[in-house]
Amino acid sequence: MIAVLRLGHRVERDKRLTSHVGLVARAFGADIMYYSGDRDATVEQTVLEVSRSWGGSFKAEYVGSWRTIVKRWEGLKIHLTMYGIPLKQAVEEIRAHHKKGENLLVIVGGEKVDAEVFRLADYNLSITSQPHSEAAALAVFLDWLFEGEELDRAFSDARLQVEPMARGKKLVRH
Amino acid sequence: MIAVLRLGHRVERDKRLTSHVGLVARAFGADIMYYSGDRDATVEQTVLEVSRSWGGSFKAEYVGSWRTIVKRWEGLKIHLTMYGIPLKQAVEEIRAHHKKGENLLVIVGGEKVDAEVFRLADYNLSITSQPHSEAAALAVFLDWLFEGEELDRAFSDARLQVEPMARGKKLVRH
Repeated sequence: MIAVLRLGHRVERDKRLTSHVGLVARAFGADIMYYSGDRDATVEQTVLEVSRSWGGSFKAEYVGSWRTIVKRWEGLKIHLTMYGIPLKQAVEEIRAHHKKGENLLVIVGGEKVDAEVFRLADYNLSITSQPHSEAAALAVFLDWLFEGEELDRAFSDARLQVEPMARGKKLVRH
Repeated sequence: MIAVLRLGHRVERDKRLTSHVGLVARAFGADIMYYSGDRDATVEQTVLEVSRSWGGSFKAEYVGSWRTIVKRWEGLKIHLTMYGIPLKQAVEEIRAHHKKGENLLVIVGGEKVDAEVFRLADYNLSITSQPHSEAAALAVFLDWLFEGEELDRAFSDARLQVEPMARGKKLVRH
């Protein structure tokens, strides 16, 4: 089981960014997104509607305290941050844990991350040491973790499915 | 030279998303981001300030007509879209073009992409066939194109630089 924890969501400022983190988590093979900060029905709804249409059981779930979920997590905790050690240094180790069946909690920050997150994480991991985007960092991390296999994934019970084509759009409805 | 073209920016709705696309483009090794839609000083400023602090000469530049830049582009045009052919099917070919010194224009959509974009692109390429995030699609595409080498990239004239560490934050100021 792979969960993503998105910290410090703010309703006005982050609505679309947090939805994107959720959709990336789903598309790249995570099982659930928890988020802390402000509760936001729009985020939960957006993610739920995508799962309903495009398949799978991924959802976004609000947690009142990020500290509780991080402290009680049974498995590996990986915090994605530009200050951490480079992805390449640790990804094989993390993959080995995952393949042994350990749960992973992948933590992505909001604007300001509490210093405690850095201490509680088993890995503080950087996807480049440059400022960019939580959604992008999460996608690249999961892509390396799964070695690109997630790109071929099919979702169960999908009502909508893309038929890939060189030009134009083709949607299949089930 | 690798340019990113972000289509259909809307000031209110997309401010942070387009900035993220710009920062991802920079962090993962593109040279410039063009954007169409609404002109937005905040996006240009955000990207410029990151380049000033973190190095390199990446910038965001407004283009009045996406059609003109796409039609006049001398090099390969790659449109990232969930409807396109899978990344793995075409990335080696694209990489070969890039290694021969051809320019790449990587096009990422906004909410509604004109059918003409699909026709004008040399490749319509999907990073999963699921809905997620332009920033994430761009990051994963560039990461595959450069085979992870962009993750080790250093930026020239950086005033700020991260010293990666297992716990905590360390910034070096030059």
